[in-house]
Amino acid sequence: MQRMLSVLVDDKPGVLSRIGGLFYRRGYNITSLTVGQTEIPGKSRFTVTFEGDEAIAEQIRKQAQKLINVIKISEHTVKNSEIREYALIKVGFTEENKTEVYHLVDFYKAKIIDILDGAAIIEITEEEGRIDKLIERLSHYQILELVRTGKVAMFRGKKTIK
Amino acid sequence: MQRMLSVLVDDKPGVLSRIGGLFYRRGYNITSLTVGQTEIPGKSRFTVTFEGDEAIAEQIRKQAQKLINVIKISEHTVKNSEIREYALIKVGFTEENKTEVYHLVDFYKAKIIDILDGAAIIEITEEEGRIDKLIERLSHYQILELVRTGKVAMFRGKKTIK
Repeated sequence: MQRMLSVLVDDKPGVLSRIGGLFYRRGYNITSLTVGQTEIPGKSRFTVTFEGDEAIAEQIRKQAQKLINVIKISEHTVKNSEIREYALIKVGFTEENKTEVYHLVDFYKAKIIDILDGAAIIEITEEEGRIDKLIERLSHYQILELVRTGKVAMFRGKKTIK
Repeated sequence: MQRMLSVLVDDKPGVLSRIGGLFYRRGYNITSLTVGQTEIPGKSRFTVTFEGDEAIAEQIRKQAQKLINVIKISEHTVKNSEIREYALIKVGFTEENKTEVYHLVDFYKAKIIDILDGAAIIEITEEEGRIDKLIERLSHYQILELVRTGKVAMFRGKKTIK
């Protein structure tokens, strides 16, 4: 089962290495990670996704809470949170496929942000697996490159991770 | 100066810890990071932003290239790449401010994805510093929470990081 943690940390060198090390030592592979600034100056937020059951998630929460510069850890689920991911997909863009690519982009509420020298860059925001579905459809043409941000999540309502 | 590297890696435990350790040992602070899957099974892509001049960037490129499971490193600039970031912003949402919040969301081409118990979650995709501007405007109301994915980048045209 895919699990997702938000980790509020002090924005200090070494935090990344320590959090990475915690997963590594226990043999848990991170499937996606984002690290960015928050509404609080000097604090960053890690969003980590990984495969694991409740026992593994509990262990990671407990261990991570002990790390230097880690302030707070919260777990997100589809029930309590809005979960999103953003991706850029580059496809070969030709006279032959362009009508179909435009059609797919429309259908998946994606957007073409650049077209140059026979390649188009498409952006899409995830909602309910739409990135995977668009990638699958586009793979019939030529996917030159794909970059995904990794997931971010936010509790609904006034509840925050602080 | 803010610099941005894409790092193609084997999707193995330990890579995160090693890349984090490289920045830590040299005292370079990562300002944002995303790690996600690519178009190649078993390969992930790190996008790292950090402050530094050309000498620092050159050192990091050289050192990172030597790390186990690191396949390829590319540097992105606004001249050669499309650069994007995605954010979720939660604001207090009241009878008093809702007209203005809707107006700002429209103006910045953002989107309200959830409204619950007096809080609204707004999503925005970065283009030319629009996230910072929207945050600044919304800070006149009540920003409850902010999560940013960190930046991702893609070369324009058929050039890829591979």
